[in-house]
Amino acid sequence: MVTIKDIAEKLGIAVSTVSKGLNGAEDISEETRQLVLDTAVEMGYSLKKIKRTKTAKVCVFVDSGNMEFETIEQFGYDIVNGFKKAAISRNWEVVIEPSRLNFRSLEKYDSYMLKNSYAGAFLLGFTLHDDWITQLEKTTVPTVLLDNFIPHNEHVGYVGTDSAEGIAQAVKHLAKLGHSRIAFLNGAKNSMVSEQREAAFRQSMAENDLPVDERLVAYGYYVPDCAKTYVSGFVKNGATAVMCASDLIASGVVNELGRLGYRVPEDVSVIGFDDLPVAEELDPPLTTVRQDRTNLGKSAALMLDGLIRGVSMSKLLLRAKLVVRYSTGPVKAKGDKIQRS
Amino acid sequence: MVTIKDIAEKLGIAVSTVSKGLNGAEDISEETRQLVLDTAVEMGYSLKKIKRTKTAKVCVFVDSGNMEFETIEQFGYDIVNGFKKAAISRNWEVVIEPSRLNFRSLEKYDSYMLKNSYAGAFLLGFTLHDDWITQLEKTTVPTVLLDNFIPHNEHVGYVGTDSAEGIAQAVKHLAKLGHSRIAFLNGAKNSMVSEQREAAFRQSMAENDLPVDERLVAYGYYVPDCAKTYVSGFVKNGATAVMCASDLIASGVVNELGRLGYRVPEDVSVIGFDDLPVAEELDPPLTTVRQDRTNLGKSAALMLDGLIRGVSMSKLLLRAKLVVRYSTGPVKAKGDKIQRS
Repeated sequence: MVTIKDIAEKLGIAVSTVSKGLNGAEDISEETRQLVLDTAVEMGYSLKKIKRTKTAKVCVFVDSGNMEFETIEQFGYDIVNGFKKAAISRNWEVVIEPSRLNFRSLEKYDSYMLKNSYAGAFLLGFTLHDDWITQLEKTTVPTVLLDNFIPHNEHVGYVGTDSAEGIAQAVKHLAKLGHSRIAFLNGAKNSMVSEQREAAFRQSMAENDLPVDERLVAYGYYVPDCAKTYVSGFVKNGATAVMCASDLIASGVVNELGRLGYRVPEDVSVIGFDDLPVAEELDPPLTTVRQDRTNLGKSAALMLDGLIRGVSMSKLLLRAKLVVRYSTGPVKAKGDKIQRS
Repeated sequence: MVTIKDIAEKLGIAVSTVSKGLNGAEDISEETRQLVLDTAVEMGYSLKKIKRTKTAKVCVFVDSGNMEFETIEQFGYDIVNGFKKAAISRNWEVVIEPSRLNFRSLEKYDSYMLKNSYAGAFLLGFTLHDDWITQLEKTTVPTVLLDNFIPHNEHVGYVGTDSAEGIAQAVKHLAKLGHSRIAFLNGAKNSMVSEQREAAFRQSMAENDLPVDERLVAYGYYVPDCAKTYVSGFVKNGATAVMCASDLIASGVVNELGRLGYRVPEDVSVIGFDDLPVAEELDPPLTTVRQDRTNLGKSAALMLDGLIRGVSMSKLLLRAKLVVRYSTGPVKAKGDKIQRS
């Protein structure tokens, strides 16, 4: 068991200085504090500290560049709230920390956790190239990631929605409506979920004996505006339906189709992903794949609880569910317009 | 909401008869009782009944043909115990029901659950061709399966160990010891886990730039005896290591190698899977992939709890961990024996 004395010996400084560094005292330099924290983590001091904590203080880190959670329309809102609800019953103190990539490139993950006495954390909105994602490969701090998987580290778990099942339901729904020219507008490229959804789209198309036209598959971003870049090309190349990786993307697609003079769903069907409040409010109300965000947050707490107790959970997936509204309809037969006129 | 009266009307029988059928009274025929139960389930009566239950009675069904759990050496023992432990804190009544395939081909799953007032069940040892596995595609009874996945049903969840990570660690360990001729002796063919482990083996070999020789890959059964059929062929075809899908298979492989005059690990390395008590007792003690069986059982209870509360968890995987003991060693250089003599 590593003691404060061990850390002091290793660094060749006084025990009292180590103690100050670990306890956030003001009368030592920031540089020394950081050195003490980093050394303590390297020597395995963090775990001991965590075990001593009685009422756990846990943190929800949100990448504020990628994930919004302040109001009910936003993706992270119900997730954070679900986490908080589950935390109450566990008597946890929950601190919400929105942070930016540049902050995380300066702070080491484990040191930051130790400094703040966090027994564990739930991380939302992190992209694959984040410094902290790399550091998580070696962390000993119980950590749950939304939509990101770290291999081989028993202290880190992944919670998410089974995208594959969701996309499979959506593509099957479109296939039943007669669509064969289905486009897929994905979210950002440096995201595990985007990769999963593309793979799921390709597999679902194959399961329905539908070919994938590469001109109808694109990576955008998880914002409505990305639709402008791709929609006219999709339609020009014969798409009669667009599967989107999020409701926000889908709302952009519906708008862009309107701007180009196409009706939804009479000319082109559109499906979203998430079932955010905006899905119901769209005109027409959006057919989408529901992620149960409150339960995602609760499940994250449940998994974090397990990790803190030494149950090395690796993956926890919730079911996705297709919600059929009015943005999808039967494919228009070729020459429909001509026959009608 | 379906009432007893609705069921009576549908069947054209008295309300009192339906009540008797649902409550297990003795003075109606078995045939009528079954008809009442099946109709109640079809009409969606089961869910209502489950919601009314205050202290839940849940069931652990064990396929007694495939899964042993009575004593601590056996695979199911810690799993069932872990489940029971987690059930206590939830105030559940747990009934353990070992059953046979022929029993399950006579009873319908949902009707059986309703008849016994089970709020949910945990199923162990079921094979893919089991009647109940097919029926689970449509069940509304909260159900957790060990090592089996039912797609698209929000009432059914799957708990298991991440076989892929376990096999990846094992193959990497062998590759680092210089082995390239690695055999894989799998368990029974009609099992999802066997399929996962074979896929994981092939992927891990590829990740280590090792070719798979099809003569070194075989499906056996999850018992030691299956080793007799394959081991001599593996060695004849140049295998210097055997990865096994269970510790019991590995114990058979170690014995068979001894019978044929090969030393473990000097001539052939052997790796098991599970880390049953037998692994440590083998001569030499077995290098194996540990499944944390107590926590598998606890996680099953945790998932069942979620499903009963309407949290549609789909998959919960625990990490696997390679435990290195003495049945693996460096590959013997070609001509070692000759140089030594």
